[in-house]
Amino acid sequence: MISKLIKRIQETNAPICVGLDPMPDLIPASVLNSNYEIYGKNLRAVAESFFEFNKKIIDTCYDLIPAVKPQIAMYEQLGIDGLIVYEKTVRYCKDKGLLVIGDIKRGDIGSTSLAYARGHIGSINVEGEVFKPFDTDMVTVNPYLGIDGIKPFIDVCNEEDKAIFVLLKTSNPSSKDFQDKVLNDGKLLYEEVADSIAEWGALSMDGKYSNVAAVVGATYPEISKKLRKRLKTTYFLVPGYGAQGAGAEDLRYCFDEDGLGAIVNSSRGIIAAYKQEKYKSKFSEAEFDLAAKEAVKDMIKDISSVL
Amino acid sequence: MISKLIKRIQETNAPICVGLDPMPDLIPASVLNSNYEIYGKNLRAVAESFFEFNKKIIDTCYDLIPAVKPQIAMYEQLGIDGLIVYEKTVRYCKDKGLLVIGDIKRGDIGSTSLAYARGHIGSINVEGEVFKPFDTDMVTVNPYLGIDGIKPFIDVCNEEDKAIFVLLKTSNPSSKDFQDKVLNDGKLLYEEVADSIAEWGALSMDGKYSNVAAVVGATYPEISKKLRKRLKTTYFLVPGYGAQGAGAEDLRYCFDEDGLGAIVNSSRGIIAAYKQEKYKSKFSEAEFDLAAKEAVKDMIKDISSVL
Repeated sequence: MISKLIKRIQETNAPICVGLDPMPDLIPASVLNSNYEIYGKNLRAVAESFFEFNKKIIDTCYDLIPAVKPQIAMYEQLGIDGLIVYEKTVRYCKDKGLLVIGDIKRGDIGSTSLAYARGHIGSINVEGEVFKPFDTDMVTVNPYLGIDGIKPFIDVCNEEDKAIFVLLKTSNPSSKDFQDKVLNDGKLLYEEVADSIAEWGALSMDGKYSNVAAVVGATYPEISKKLRKRLKTTYFLVPGYGAQGAGAEDLRYCFDEDGLGAIVNSSRGIIAAYKQEKYKSKFSEAEFDLAAKEAVKDMIKDISSVL
Repeated sequence: MISKLIKRIQETNAPICVGLDPMPDLIPASVLNSNYEIYGKNLRAVAESFFEFNKKIIDTCYDLIPAVKPQIAMYEQLGIDGLIVYEKTVRYCKDKGLLVIGDIKRGDIGSTSLAYARGHIGSINVEGEVFKPFDTDMVTVNPYLGIDGIKPFIDVCNEEDKAIFVLLKTSNPSSKDFQDKVLNDGKLLYEEVADSIAEWGALSMDGKYSNVAAVVGATYPEISKKLRKRLKTTYFLVPGYGAQGAGAEDLRYCFDEDGLGAIVNSSRGIIAAYKQEKYKSKFSEAEFDLAAKEAVKDMIKDISSVL
């Protein structure tokens, strides 16, 4: 799968993905209101608004980008109605030719991790019939439980040609709470996790890079520089650009010399571009999709400038 | 919420919870087949079989125990059909007077963690109408992202009188991969996490114990002994008893002198008791619920012997 992602990145010349993380307060009132009229003031109406919002953004942006990353929490907060729209969003994106990274950050042990892996990137066999419940191409996973929690995902990656991004150094301020702890051999915890990711990565190589990839926040450029050197065959999914404060300069070190090695995510910076001063003057609220498209183009240009 | 849980534990005299973690191979063929006949050979049929299986076990066991712990991964592997049954199971258990611990192991940052918290233990306000999507009483959460990922859950605990169990030392063999790392000050990583849990716990006290509780595996008795001493106000959710190999003797140290401080989970050991030699001779496959009830009674007796 990681070689497919690289091919799409090269075709689009855009090492970025758009985070489809709708929140009620990011959706134009007109979209919400029209769905309240159809469904009433309930979770279904909000969920359908999420889909309408996503769909318009995908329709204007799909040919500019290789991938999207829906954050499942945004859908899960609406319960079943939200998860139906998560699934519908994944399918719609895939039909448009996009690769989909499900930002699920799951992690458990043994048969439980296998259940997550099957449900999200794998398949379930019911008496000979094969079903692919959420059918995303890649997912994010949490390493806190060690290899027991990761191995079932790797097995499914190998069976179904999928990929995972293991949380390594996350972009939030308190990622330091545990990830930056210094161990008694002088290593930092995230370096220990990095070395495990390298080891696990050998179990699912796909060309130069492994299907076992990593999440490395853009907000700590010195750390990404170190991790890039440490992990020669690990692709990075890089959150934190834009709304979380990191700029293009901070991203430089996430990439290899050949301009590969990383895919940078932006969520609010794209999907809610219409709320930013920069785009407000040019686009109305109803043109949120056009504002998103312009923001995508600006992001590609911005990142290209440091490659 | 933690004081409610303690009250129920005292009323039932049973510091245990039953893990409602159905897997297709744990369900009697007769249950699956009757649902294949109704729904066809598909995910819906498996999900409905899960519900039928859960329901029978709850109906026979609900008055013996304080709480259940459905593992959401088992439902999520079936996609939307499975999650509908997860929600239905939660509601059914609550209607029977049981407290429900959603074993979701979620963890993300800021607004994303808040979305999970609202969806699982909180509520969503849609133009003045309040909805409670999954409506569990307690959930498990992952600490790898630090306080940013935990604080939104604590806020919701305080708003809605709920509780969380933070993964501390998990029961699986590879929990040692990162959790047991020795830091440069001599502390182990799980001790560092333990101290954070104690600190976070102060933000949501509920009687002697905090609504910020911890997951501590039964499979490492020496560690639980240390953690029990370190964490005076933290309730423990203890997996690993039974199928994962820990016996009653291993549990002794999870409890305080007053017999409180821990709730022990068993999943397969109860719900698939009918497959064990011990119960096979007494109960037929169709009597899986009666076998579960006997296994619950045996577990209560076993654990009481060390308190």
